[in-house]
Amino acid sequence: MTGVSDVLVVAPHPDDDVIGCGGSIAKHVRDGARVTVVIVIGRERSALDDAVSDAEFAAETEAAAKALGVHRCIRLEEPSRDFALSRRVHLDLVRILREVRPQVVYLPHDNDDDVEHRMVHRLTVEALWMAQSEFFQETGGRPMPAPRLVLGYEVWAPMARFQYAEDIDGQIETKVEAMRAYASQLRHAAWDEGIRGLARYRGAVSSGSGHAEVFQVISLGAVPAAGREGGGRD
Amino acid sequence: MTGVSDVLVVAPHPDDDVIGCGGSIAKHVRDGARVTVVIVIGRERSALDDAVSDAEFAAETEAAAKALGVHRCIRLEEPSRDFALSRRVHLDLVRILREVRPQVVYLPHDNDDDVEHRMVHRLTVEALWMAQSEFFQETGGRPMPAPRLVLGYEVWAPMARFQYAEDIDGQIETKVEAMRAYASQLRHAAWDEGIRGLARYRGAVSSGSGHAEVFQVISLGAVPAAGREGGGRD
Amino acid sequence: MTGVSDVLVVAPHPDDDVIGCGGSIAKHVRDGARVTVVIVIGRERSALDDAVSDAEFAAETEAAAKALGVHRCIRLEEPSRDFALSRRVHLDLVRILREVRPQVVYLPHDNDDDVEHRMVHRLTVEALWMAQSEFFQETGGRPMPAPRLVLGYEVWAPMARFQYAEDIDGQIETKVEAMRAYASQLRHAAWDEGIRGLARYRGAVSSGSGHAEVFQVISLGAVPAAGREGGGRD
Amino acid sequence: MTGVSDVLVVAPHPDDDVIGCGGSIAKHVRDGARVTVVIVIGRERSALDDAVSDAEFAAETEAAAKALGVHRCIRLEEPSRDFALSRRVHLDLVRILREVRPQVVYLPHDNDDDVEHRMVHRLTVEALWMAQSEFFQETGGRPMPAPRLVLGYEVWAPMARFQYAEDIDGQIETKVEAMRAYASQLRHAAWDEGIRGLARYRGAVSSGSGHAEVFQVISLGAVPAAGREGGGRD
Amino acid sequence: MTGVSDVLVVAPHPDDDVIGCGGSIAKHVRDGARVTVVIVIGRERSALDDAVSDAEFAAETEAAAKALGVHRCIRLEEPSRDFALSRRVHLDLVRILREVRPQVVYLPHDNDDDVEHRMVHRLTVEALWMAQSEFFQETGGRPMPAPRLVLGYEVWAPMARFQYAEDIDGQIETKVEAMRAYASQLRHAAWDEGIRGLARYRGAVSSGSGHAEVFQVISLGAVPAAGREGGGRD
Amino acid sequence: MTGVSDVLVVAPHPDDDVIGCGGSIAKHVRDGARVTVVIVIGRERSALDDAVSDAEFAAETEAAAKALGVHRCIRLEEPSRDFALSRRVHLDLVRILREVRPQVVYLPHDNDDDVEHRMVHRLTVEALWMAQSEFFQETGGRPMPAPRLVLGYEVWAPMARFQYAEDIDGQIETKVEAMRAYASQLRHAAWDEGIRGLARYRGAVSSGSGHAEVFQVISLGAVPAAGREGGGRD
Repeated sequence: MTGVSDVLVVAPHPDDDVIGCGGSIAKHVRDGARVTVVIVIGRERSALDDAVSDAEFAAETEAAAKALGVHRCIRLEEPSRDFALSRRVHLDLVRILREVRPQVVYLPHDNDDDVEHRMVHRLTVEALWMAQSEFFQETGGRPMPAPRLVLGYEVWAPMARFQYAEDIDGQIETKVEAMRAYASQLRHAAWDEGIRGLARYRGAVSSGSGHAEVFQVISLGAVPAAGREGGGRD
Repeated sequence: MTGVSDVLVVAPHPDDDVIGCGGSIAKHVRDGARVTVVIVIGRERSALDDAVSDAEFAAETEAAAKALGVHRCIRLEEPSRDFALSRRVHLDLVRILREVRPQVVYLPHDNDDDVEHRMVHRLTVEALWMAQSEFFQETGGRPMPAPRLVLGYEVWAPMARFQYAEDIDGQIETKVEAMRAYASQLRHAAWDEGIRGLARYRGAVSSGSGHAEVFQVISLGAVPAAGREGGGRD
Repeated sequence: MTGVSDVLVVAPHPDDDVIGCGGSIAKHVRDGARVTVVIVIGRERSALDDAVSDAEFAAETEAAAKALGVHRCIRLEEPSRDFALSRRVHLDLVRILREVRPQVVYLPHDNDDDVEHRMVHRLTVEALWMAQSEFFQETGGRPMPAPRLVLGYEVWAPMARFQYAEDIDGQIETKVEAMRAYASQLRHAAWDEGIRGLARYRGAVSSGSGHAEVFQVISLGAVPAAGREGGGRD
Repeated sequence: MTGVSDVLVVAPHPDDDVIGCGGSIAKHVRDGARVTVVIVIGRERSALDDAVSDAEFAAETEAAAKALGVHRCIRLEEPSRDFALSRRVHLDLVRILREVRPQVVYLPHDNDDDVEHRMVHRLTVEALWMAQSEFFQETGGRPMPAPRLVLGYEVWAPMARFQYAEDIDGQIETKVEAMRAYASQLRHAAWDEGIRGLARYRGAVSSGSGHAEVFQVISLGAVPAAGREGGGRD
Repeated sequence: MTGVSDVLVVAPHPDDDVIGCGGSIAKHVRDGARVTVVIVIGRERSALDDAVSDAEFAAETEAAAKALGVHRCIRLEEPSRDFALSRRVHLDLVRILREVRPQVVYLPHDNDDDVEHRMVHRLTVEALWMAQSEFFQETGGRPMPAPRLVLGYEVWAPMARFQYAEDIDGQIETKVEAMRAYASQLRHAAWDEGIRGLARYRGAVSSGSGHAEVFQVISLGAVPAAGREGGGRD
Repeated sequence: MTGVSDVLVVAPHPDDDVIGCGGSIAKHVRDGARVTVVIVIGRERSALDDAVSDAEFAAETEAAAKALGVHRCIRLEEPSRDFALSRRVHLDLVRILREVRPQVVYLPHDNDDDVEHRMVHRLTVEALWMAQSEFFQETGGRPMPAPRLVLGYEVWAPMARFQYAEDIDGQIETKVEAMRAYASQLRHAAWDEGIRGLARYRGAVSSGSGHAEVFQVISLGAVPAAGREGGGRD
């Protein structure tokens, strides 16, 4: 992905960025892009077991971001299961979009199997429109140019059809390592092996081998230029 | 799955049974059931590479069935990409259903990403109704009792939501081995590792660990009786 | 339905339990199960006509529950048309699920034609996941085992396709009697005859005669064991 | 329904017209309209039991049409389960449309749970377009004016949402009587009571009492004129 | 549209009424009906550019209504992007419906591409039911009779299928003029030419020429009476 | 669209290419690409009026292709309304794909409102897969590399959501001129003005002014490279 300087990933909860597009994040970083992750909803105490403190959980999140090479991680700390799509949270995301000015944006796909994932999908699609308009000047910043590509990633509900596949054969170990930073989560489910398995299946389906992440194309700003043929491989 | 004596798997093409429910087949066999596989469409010459003869491909199919412990494999040899849902093919399947009288039936789920898979879904749902009715006496056989369970399996399009998960942690190696019997297919894509990966993801999502196959519940004939709690594990 | 000791029915408003699965409730009771009904939203004054007092309406609800043999009726009294899916109401339902520990759960199907019915569908699906997890310890109680069966019932929008039919030929008069306990409702619409009519149609469609309630299978925890063939009849 | 002189009902199989809109047919007849029924697919021998001869079945169909007051019944005798949407069958229906020139047309709704019902839906929608165009002169006849109303009826899959309800409280006994003319069908399922039940449910849902048939509005050619308020009642 | 005395248009934001059904409004006015427009959500300061004052924007709205001949414009001034479907706003709309007692109602169609448009769709459908019931007496007014026709209009997402087309060839200039009253909007996008273009496309598709507005039929209260054939033209 | 040497447009009938993507075709030609159009279904005699001969209609098609600058137009002449998705027609399209080896492919979107458009959508998606595989050697030619972009265009049913917009402000007159080449069609409907209108609406919606064609992204083979920001404009 040549010429991408800034990428924005919108994640409903900590670790959704790793599961949904951790390999692609690592690949963007390898190619020289700055990746900003916005985590919309805070992980509340009661969704953790007693053995993990808030500080330990924060450290896990930081370690995961570091493993992927994320440039900056912004937490909006919206309340879990009390999250609502208010004007305020829209403007928060518009402000970030106008500051980061990403060429590529990642968000949950429109049919994920978690109501907060679907809310964050709608929030991001709306904020993208607002950030490109000439209005909402109270957020500061100039209108953002249209991103070249907006992609929906899969976490809880794999997509029946996808429009883009990214080869992450060179990034799969980094992705699994980032997932393993969330030691408190792995005590309850083997997500590290689960996401490796899904990437393996997506690799076989999309190119016959290796590992891949697959995406819904939500918006395409320009036709891909000439060059190497054959789709998302390198 | 206690008390299941006969299982019918309807597969559009050779190997769809392995990919979609190979682990569950092996588990049924382990529990003493006879499993019959019906392969509706023949693999035509031109969908194979030149290095594999018809005899070799037939031997592969046989080896796969043997690996899973399939009791009987019936080939309808409908023409690929010329397949149509005729009266004749409906009656062929009605005849088999009335002879096998399965308690559990497997077929492709209703949204798989291949037109022939969706045609076989419709064919099987219709034939199940016909086989239970008092009509269509030209097929011979008495009307079939309602199956206890009719399940849709995933091959090309993973399901966004599923209603039943089968733990196949004890059968995953058998499933992969059956897939590897199709050596001519693996030359072009690493299906063996692809299906292992999907089973790993489905295991993590459905029970936190291990390997699983997940299914759409198409028809349930009776409420599961009391016993061990916790869902499809053993 | 052998071996079912506890059943939970989640109803958006009073009488939805009777309309959606009143016959199945009576059948569970006949078979020795304890049935708990949770009514999420309170019936507000202005949705009643002037001729009925609050006390009279409460008495109607009690009489309906008694007619079906309901063990316990829990009212969450959420405000009608101001109902929102908060963290608090999720935890309220998790607490009940962990206490009742049902083997069978009933809720509105996912496409009912009333926004509050669809909200209660989502609430219940989410609370089922939460109640089975090891988190949310503030509700007290141990994690609940997976139910054997989770079923969606129809009230305002009949389902285009259903996966399970329950024969209620022996319970239809009890169901109608429970409906008639809501005398204040029947002044405005003949629900008693409406639900008898739907059960008759569902009986003809699902087994050719009698009365039935039909359901969406939302989650199946185990394959139904051997025994009488033929589907949901007794 | 004042001023309707000609009505066309397209039915996939014999008796679908009775089940889907038999009450509305009888009401049109009462109001002075000529009703033509087109039955697209022939009932094949093997979908009848041995006790009924072809002549007996033909007599049943005739008796049902007579009970409703149908003016003319046209049979296309397409082959069951070998039915395909050919050019020939389109032109057959265009010819009938241009001859009958109906103001109101009935056909199966677009999501009925039978593949041949859905095929007849598509056939009729296409033929309606063709009949109104200036082309396809080989059928003879002038282009047909746009019908005032095109309605989809329900047979096997009740509609989750409907746009029009017809009060058939005065026609329900006629509808049931027409159904009972199909004695060979009633031996296998109590359709007479099934359709009475559905009409009772639809009456309660749409107007609080009585019997109704409900419809999908597929095309509306003119806004209903002033007069009695209150919707489809008389 | 003979005999229509009162029409109600529910618009999410100022100018949605013009875009969605401005031509039909002008036609109703020509035919002698009183048209009431309800604008649910207020246009907030920050969605305007700095060059337009609140007073100027209010004057634009007034000029647009005047251009179409709207009898009365009611503003509910719900907060943009903080809008929620409360009991209060439902009762506000019920009160208006019971006062206006419209024979024809317009609202956004059920799949428009803006979350607030979809919320206003749900609000209006629910309020229509409430207003016709005998309950909710706190709003004052008698129950409203069922409208003859309820239509969904298109703004941001054109409909893939429509059920009714209104010829607005004689009203297109009035519609464009009303749009041009919103000078502050036209500085940012050429809506005046955009809506003329869509009407031209809809005219070609629905009748081969001219300009049209097309609609989803949400509810039909009576079959259109006899008269001129050919669909929505005059 | 730099670096695109070959484009393939698959059209169900003559003129669908002009309506769906005529502006984009002209833009590709301007940028130096060779555009091949495949017309799958032949226009039968009876879908023309008597005033136009076969030779005249063929001349119209040729003139339209010339207006757009199409390099080559291939007619498969499948029979209208008798069209079926056979093996033969799949292989015909595979052969063309392997010969043309396009970087960009256009086909009808997946929800167009014409059954033959949806069949051609499925045909093309399947043929794209086949052409890229190593099988089906009987068509001759080497496997085709994955296209950079596969786009679905709109003809009869505008898309509720689109993922890519192409600015055709510089090509709109060429597009209208190509449409006008079909004089025999324009006698019956003003398509020339209809498509100009739709392009105007799509321009206003997608970029605030001008004319545009909008597309469903069916498959994206590579991320668009750096360069001018702002989306499909030039």
